[in-house]
Amino acid sequence: MIEEKGILFVLSGPSGVGKGTVRKALFEKATNLQYSISVTTRNPREGEKDGVDYFFKTKEEFQNMIEQNQLLEWAEYVGNYYGTPKEYVQETLDKGKDVFLEIEVQGAMKVKKNFPEGVFIFLIPPSLEELKNRIINRGTETEELVTNRLLAAREEIEMMDAYDYVVVNDEVEKAVEKILSIVQSEHCKRERVAKQYKKALEGDVT
Amino acid sequence: MIEEKGILFVLSGPSGVGKGTVRKALFEKATNLQYSISVTTRNPREGEKDGVDYFFKTKEEFQNMIEQNQLLEWAEYVGNYYGTPKEYVQETLDKGKDVFLEIEVQGAMKVKKNFPEGVFIFLIPPSLEELKNRIINRGTETEELVTNRLLAAREEIEMMDAYDYVVVNDEVEKAVEKILSIVQSEHCKRERVAKQYKKALEGDVT
Repeated sequence: MIEEKGILFVLSGPSGVGKGTVRKALFEKATNLQYSISVTTRNPREGEKDGVDYFFKTKEEFQNMIEQNQLLEWAEYVGNYYGTPKEYVQETLDKGKDVFLEIEVQGAMKVKKNFPEGVFIFLIPPSLEELKNRIINRGTETEELVTNRLLAAREEIEMMDAYDYVVVNDEVEKAVEKILSIVQSEHCKRERVAKQYKKALEGDVT
Repeated sequence: MIEEKGILFVLSGPSGVGKGTVRKALFEKATNLQYSISVTTRNPREGEKDGVDYFFKTKEEFQNMIEQNQLLEWAEYVGNYYGTPKEYVQETLDKGKDVFLEIEVQGAMKVKKNFPEGVFIFLIPPSLEELKNRIINRGTETEELVTNRLLAAREEIEMMDAYDYVVVNDEVEKAVEKILSIVQSEHCKRERVAKQYKKALEGDVT
């Protein structure tokens, strides 16, 4: 069997939407997804292994990675640095394994800039979905309440534009099922499949 | 709940690939797909109902439908006409139900011309997939055999270009699962989802 290249999937969404819960539930079901292992400067906790839980680095090493453009994104939290290592992601994809990254919206936008061929999934809260339904069906909210919530919702909706898919997190299981569908269908995308065939065939007949 | 619009899915592929078998297996699993009912000039067979199995029409009525551009595609087989009625497809989609059409490649291309917003899935035989794998892994076929099969395969590969997805029909169940993933993930596409939100929100705040 030919080893096809993996795809980088990035799950993001507004804070509080439940990205972490969805990611955990997803990994209980998904067997061919590799969770993206982060680089960090914080100390390993009891039982954490280098290259499994994190890649543990010194601040100097991390600084070098930033300077040599070896991170798809990075950020600082309470004095420690965290980032996504480009080489590890690329090597995993080259082995034919999909990589899954769950990250907040700013990080996702950095990844998109550095790795636009990734597939970006935006998780939205059911409240946004409900808001939309209320507006369309009218009459169940006062004008003012809807208007205030609308203004807040606009920001979230504008964020959507940078993503390939939008999944409502109404039920974790349903959201997971949708993400698994996205993973499977992306592998059937004609652009990806046709490229492999053309590469195989054009290399030989001539 | 807001009624979202349905999507037209078109399954096609080279003759003999097993489109009909996959379609039947799909309809045993899919509950929210409506099979596209064709218009025909042939006589109803025992037990066939108008509007369920086919829309039965006279040749004159069919001719009128052609002239008034009411068919997404049509063709003649052994003296009878068969076609896909545009209005029926559109009304079903407007009710929020997905429509699924299984059709040979020439018909699929006509549908694409008349309904480019459909999602087009190309089913390929496992022999094509195997051929690709053999070429890539080399050495198991004589040069000449591979070359002859390659020339034949090229046509099929060129057909792919007009489609959104490519599904290998190696096992019917697997192909069905992939098609169901495509159906589900297409409903999560950002373009579709964001359009609904923007329509809902922009209509109200101003």
